[in-house]
Amino acid sequence: MLNQVKLVKKASLSLAYTKTADKNNLLALIAKNLAKNKQKIIKANLIDQAKAKHLLNSGELTKPLLERLILNDEKIAQLSNYCEAVANLADPAAKVLSKTMLDDGLVLTKITEPFGVIASIFESRPEVVVQVASLALKSGNGVILKGGSEAKHTNQCLSQIIKESLANYNLADALVLIETRGQVSEILAMEEHIDLIIPRGSNQFVKYIQDNTRIPVMGHSGGVCHVYVAANANLAEALNIVIDSKTDYPSACNAVETLLLDEKIAKDFLAKFLLSPKIRNIKLFADRSASEMITAKGVVVKIIENDWEKEYNDLAISIKLVKGIDEAITHINKHGSKHTDSILTENSKEALKFLNQVDSASVVHNASTRFADGFVFGLGAEVGISTGKYHARGPVGLEGLVTTKWRLVGKGHIKGDYGAAPKKSFKHQNLLT
Amino acid sequence: MLNQVKLVKKASLSLAYTKTADKNNLLALIAKNLAKNKQKIIKANLIDQAKAKHLLNSGELTKPLLERLILNDEKIAQLSNYCEAVANLADPAAKVLSKTMLDDGLVLTKITEPFGVIASIFESRPEVVVQVASLALKSGNGVILKGGSEAKHTNQCLSQIIKESLANYNLADALVLIETRGQVSEILAMEEHIDLIIPRGSNQFVKYIQDNTRIPVMGHSGGVCHVYVAANANLAEALNIVIDSKTDYPSACNAVETLLLDEKIAKDFLAKFLLSPKIRNIKLFADRSASEMITAKGVVVKIIENDWEKEYNDLAISIKLVKGIDEAITHINKHGSKHTDSILTENSKEALKFLNQVDSASVVHNASTRFADGFVFGLGAEVGISTGKYHARGPVGLEGLVTTKWRLVGKGHIKGDYGAAPKKSFKHQNLLT
Repeated sequence: MLNQVKLVKKASLSLAYTKTADKNNLLALIAKNLAKNKQKIIKANLIDQAKAKHLLNSGELTKPLLERLILNDEKIAQLSNYCEAVANLADPAAKVLSKTMLDDGLVLTKITEPFGVIASIFESRPEVVVQVASLALKSGNGVILKGGSEAKHTNQCLSQIIKESLANYNLADALVLIETRGQVSEILAMEEHIDLIIPRGSNQFVKYIQDNTRIPVMGHSGGVCHVYVAANANLAEALNIVIDSKTDYPSACNAVETLLLDEKIAKDFLAKFLLSPKIRNIKLFADRSASEMITAKGVVVKIIENDWEKEYNDLAISIKLVKGIDEAITHINKHGSKHTDSILTENSKEALKFLNQVDSASVVHNASTRFADGFVFGLGAEVGISTGKYHARGPVGLEGLVTTKWRLVGKGHIKGDYGAAPKKSFKHQNLLT
Repeated sequence: MLNQVKLVKKASLSLAYTKTADKNNLLALIAKNLAKNKQKIIKANLIDQAKAKHLLNSGELTKPLLERLILNDEKIAQLSNYCEAVANLADPAAKVLSKTMLDDGLVLTKITEPFGVIASIFESRPEVVVQVASLALKSGNGVILKGGSEAKHTNQCLSQIIKESLANYNLADALVLIETRGQVSEILAMEEHIDLIIPRGSNQFVKYIQDNTRIPVMGHSGGVCHVYVAANANLAEALNIVIDSKTDYPSACNAVETLLLDEKIAKDFLAKFLLSPKIRNIKLFADRSASEMITAKGVVVKIIENDWEKEYNDLAISIKLVKGIDEAITHINKHGSKHTDSILTENSKEALKFLNQVDSASVVHNASTRFADGFVFGLGAEVGISTGKYHARGPVGLEGLVTTKWRLVGKGHIKGDYGAAPKKSFKHQNLLT
């Protein structure tokens, strides 16, 4: 496999400075070839589906996994559209960030450059092959894909279509599909040849990747998001936002998991909340004080003693009373996953304190946590959401897939000529604008 | 120690959004207090010096280490000037990078924000206390310092002066000095409380840090820089640049270690090179072909068989013949440390290929590798040089000490209202011009 990866690295050096127009034409060609080979893709997918149904019957696979596996006409058309949409996004590479004349004839440029080789390790959904490949190729990166074995035939078929399109540009080596599970640990150890890993899958899966490689990993392993309803919240608005944050898409990483209620409004808020028909299917967990208020309204609740880091990914929520904003901020910074947290208040000074001091990638005031998303944020496409602070943070688009490089061009300049007078000194003249 | 670190984290939350003017006044106060307490600093330093001299006599300490330890009047004045210079640099924090109206009343801002807590682990030079603290504080970060035991009294004295200055702003907790060696491994394990580690010291030291923590480490463990003299180089210029790259400051990380000579000009270049009086003290190591040419001129050389990753940090250089630019690029990408590499040629097409395909933080054309430096590059001050691609790359200034945060402010907006018609769609209007 090392040889395959080395070939990807080599191809990535050519791809890195391929013209934007060529990269866009390549993506258009992939879109066209996906449409053209629709029957072939569906045929491959049916083989995977048949195998998965067997595993479902024997209990070795869950129904959601089977559902995520399916590629039909509509989904294939969406993938073609996706490639075309990525072609239309601005090219993040080869952007000149600064240009400085250090001295006559000595010019320094800071330029964006692709990482090199990106490895994407993901579970069942075969769409990821096309989604990640199109983002990686648009940003000029070579790409290594490792999908789940349950989607083996579909992944092979999709990769082959992309590789054939790449071959038109003499870049067939820029993508490789890795197939056996043992190869994951090999990938994780290839820090000399792989520049970035993007895992997609369950929290445990991402955590495993993070814990077992020295290659930078872009992503998040947890989504314990909070909504804090402050003493000065507009309670009608708050009710609306809390319910949306929980129910709009409960299994999303930006769904709220813990509701912090200022003790001054807890009773009033809960009275409205517990009456809402929309919360009927939500399982409630709460601290003792909140539990008493909830039980008093005849609603079932389970008491939480200490476990404030639960990510339900489901119609369930933890509720805790807090004395005020300081306790809310401390709780979130201690128990949250640095993903997305929201404050609901009409007090702008408190809102600013929350936005400043909550140490999370996305902080929200008077709106739902569910907005934290690359498409919503206007990034065009999303590689994932990063809860790390190093490099990209929060929803990550194409710009997260490039690094920078310094280029210095001189005319025989040597350092020994510069220093205190009578030596020369630097001019540092900005050549941009 | 955990409690001390937690206090730094807490103080960093206040520091993060301290006004630029206050941070600048703080730095001016530190500069003033350093000057005012000069005698105290020198007294503390003399204690460390006395102890170090004992260790020198017993062979437990080297002379360069003792020299690096010394703080005199001039160096203390330089430290005060340094703080004032950092005060004059632009504030990298709280910069609005983008501002987008997602929909009426729903505004998203991407803003720069300090990392939080930076830990600096360094060896003997006590200046690092002031240098790192001023950069960390200016960028709004709390800072943990761990210096070498040989500078214990000096480090304590300098830290105390900074802490007293911080106390004027109720921020005394924002800096802590850690003193015992065992605490390093504790620091490396505190990934929940420390956001970034900046090690300074030998390559082995930095490598040890990188290998033993999951906290992001900013720096470099190697500086195997190359100069490639291509077939079309201006040989007089090349001679000048090669000698500067090696001799201007041989122990610097951006000094050249390996000289790659195109076989078409190798003989001519070596003839000039070996005649230069400036190379008399340089020890030569070379492959067989180059060694033959060197020996033919009556100059002593040692043959290198395979070890092309030697970092001499001294007046010594490896020399290798290559068939052309492709072999040069392949050699550098395989054996270099992704720090700084230079091509000398009058062929602009080859130069561009080199600048594009050499996978290093700084790439240079027709100039010395020695220019790769934060001050030279116009960054004002340098935290270090990063050979990683994730986050900052190459010389890193204040901008490398900040991350970004997304802030979303709404008026009760919920995600469930947005989607395909008849639902609302996003407007994504850029509010920055």
